[in-house]
Amino acid sequence: MVKIAIMGHGTVGSGVVEVLTTHADSITSRAKQEIDIKYILDLREFPDSPLADRFTKSFDDILNDPEILVVVEVMGGLHPAYDYVKSCLEAGKSVVTSNKELVAAKGAELLKIAQEKNLNFLFEASVGGGIPIIRPMSQCLAANDVVEVAGILNGTTNFILTKMINEDMSFEDALALAQKLGYAERNPAADVEGHDACRKICILASLAYGKHVYPDQVHTEGITNISLADVKYADAWGGVVKLIGEVSKTPEGKLHSIVCPMFIPRDSQLANVDDVFNGIMVRGDATGDVVFYGKGAGKLPTASAVVADVIDCVKHIQARKYLFWEDGSPDYVADYLDAEVAMYVRLKGDDPDGLCRLAEEAFGEISRLFRKDADPGEAAFLTPVLPEREIRAKLETLAQHGAQILNTIRLSDF
Amino acid sequence: MVKIAIMGHGTVGSGVVEVLTTHADSITSRAKQEIDIKYILDLREFPDSPLADRFTKSFDDILNDPEILVVVEVMGGLHPAYDYVKSCLEAGKSVVTSNKELVAAKGAELLKIAQEKNLNFLFEASVGGGIPIIRPMSQCLAANDVVEVAGILNGTTNFILTKMINEDMSFEDALALAQKLGYAERNPAADVEGHDACRKICILASLAYGKHVYPDQVHTEGITNISLADVKYADAWGGVVKLIGEVSKTPEGKLHSIVCPMFIPRDSQLANVDDVFNGIMVRGDATGDVVFYGKGAGKLPTASAVVADVIDCVKHIQARKYLFWEDGSPDYVADYLDAEVAMYVRLKGDDPDGLCRLAEEAFGEISRLFRKDADPGEAAFLTPVLPEREIRAKLETLAQHGAQILNTIRLSDF
Repeated sequence: MVKIAIMGHGTVGSGVVEVLTTHADSITSRAKQEIDIKYILDLREFPDSPLADRFTKSFDDILNDPEILVVVEVMGGLHPAYDYVKSCLEAGKSVVTSNKELVAAKGAELLKIAQEKNLNFLFEASVGGGIPIIRPMSQCLAANDVVEVAGILNGTTNFILTKMINEDMSFEDALALAQKLGYAERNPAADVEGHDACRKICILASLAYGKHVYPDQVHTEGITNISLADVKYADAWGGVVKLIGEVSKTPEGKLHSIVCPMFIPRDSQLANVDDVFNGIMVRGDATGDVVFYGKGAGKLPTASAVVADVIDCVKHIQARKYLFWEDGSPDYVADYLDAEVAMYVRLKGDDPDGLCRLAEEAFGEISRLFRKDADPGEAAFLTPVLPEREIRAKLETLAQHGAQILNTIRLSDF
Repeated sequence: MVKIAIMGHGTVGSGVVEVLTTHADSITSRAKQEIDIKYILDLREFPDSPLADRFTKSFDDILNDPEILVVVEVMGGLHPAYDYVKSCLEAGKSVVTSNKELVAAKGAELLKIAQEKNLNFLFEASVGGGIPIIRPMSQCLAANDVVEVAGILNGTTNFILTKMINEDMSFEDALALAQKLGYAERNPAADVEGHDACRKICILASLAYGKHVYPDQVHTEGITNISLADVKYADAWGGVVKLIGEVSKTPEGKLHSIVCPMFIPRDSQLANVDDVFNGIMVRGDATGDVVFYGKGAGKLPTASAVVADVIDCVKHIQARKYLFWEDGSPDYVADYLDAEVAMYVRLKGDDPDGLCRLAEEAFGEISRLFRKDADPGEAAFLTPVLPEREIRAKLETLAQHGAQILNTIRLSDF
């Protein structure tokens, strides 16, 4: 029997307890031994829980108990999760976490401690909820060079965009519906401003290329600026707007990484990832495109990924697993403005046709998009592929000629 | 350094050599040691290969060399692959294979020998080519009960059906094109009659439910009977025809497993899996639906999956991996005629409307489908959900009233 502690009894934490309890027999048989929850750390009281006697408010109970070999961290947030996890690893306890903020901010440091102590630090649930992605990427794609990773990594924003695309709902109405259904927090900033997706692409980028990418190195745009007009123009172009987290290697050996809304062609595998689902494309030089799809969040999907890691931990209690990446460096991620990209531009002005002619002169060629019921003075077009810095400069010129640039959205290359 | 042998130098085998050679540095770093190809077994001569000095025509060279710890079997076919693999395992060598025919026919037996000898027997490449599916299913979904697995498991038939659906090509023309492009063999029976998909669903079923399912236990229908008329009716219904391999548990604890063309609704994640791509849906009780998508065949995708297994093997040379299932039993798979299903029926007769009225009486209710340019005397309808045996009996009655049943296709429930 292996005794474990679970830190946090919120949505995911209570899900972990539920999965461990309801699937006890099959888990015991897969882990080759029984898994016993000795402590649950939470400041709140849960007198009605069948495991009420396991609750503690003191982290030290866990830290100082030599019987505890595996600690599950499902509290979320950076503090005190980081301090607790670090202390656990330093005390010789393996850690399983679903905390993407923690892994994105401190992954390299914690993996290093785990390596030195010959422990496991596993975080399958931190990206894609119940979708297996961390392990397949690190193991099955071991024989590939990863050319690119691109994914719909946040279910809340994907739900909102799906409602805008399929039901003509405004951003505000779709957000309100997401909040009503429990998909979005009352303060939705982490989702709609792209921070959650940013943390996840940082984890995937670190894993794919072996060096830590920190969230503040990744240019991040959310979806608060996306209007129904943009959605219609995407449709006219032949695609949909999705919030994408992306990473690839530049010819100079740096990384290109960005989180932003993108136009995705309708025949892309990611275009059909709707509602709260996530889809992650891993492009390998040998495998080609492999796509992983499923529910990216939710109590039981995330909990089942945590429990799978716990089982793996218990089975390899003396053998460190394969996960590792080095620390990063300030110049590891290239300036996003240097990346080559084609861009959708929506603008407004007194003479939109004249502005488009100016744009055509500036860009060499553009292709205009049209939608029904366009606002007066509105125009939209696609630029050719150019370094983003050049596109921005040319749009600046247009602005000086009276164009009001309403939105710009990058076109995907997948 | 670990010395390995590769049995077979066909498409996959030469791909394995290529991946091991071109990615040598990253593979060495991931495997923690160098992987050296000491032997390549093939009866043919490859004088121009840079590894020409490693070729042998004698299996005994490999079997009797105690330096060889890992053997890669990429010969295909049941004999002599089975005998060679069994001898290797009995001699204490771990085996990696891409051979679905071998695993589907002999998996339980070979896994048992591997377990007894504390060796690895790995076969990620046997299903889904470069798509990671065996390992994610067995590891990441460890905390789930698998409710159902359903997949597009054969790229050749999916290519043919895609051409029929999107380009109105006849089955014969699409097959000829597939052969021209190298996607189909000159003798295409294993693909178009469903045997290849059957072997793969047997492997997934064995893994998901822990007991071996043999190919002759799974009712298998191919796509040779699918006409453009069926494709059009599927479109009228709101979906597409795909060749599906499926397995789920019956309430009695047996398995339901079948390989056959199915009508898939257009909003299913599997409906958009086109051309030579594969898509596999795993429905877990906690994760919900997880879908894996990618190239299901091809030299480099398959080779990279083989090499990933080799790396895993080399890293765990002394530690047996998690893969295991018991032997099966003759009554383990339920009779497919007992499964409840809704069915598309296309028939012909002197009075099609009258036959449909008869069908409505027989089935209680049916819903008729219509297509442009239907043949004279043709009609198509959907039955309600009933045990297949009852549907067949009622269709028999219709036949006695002069109906010529042209085709029947099951409707998917995913």
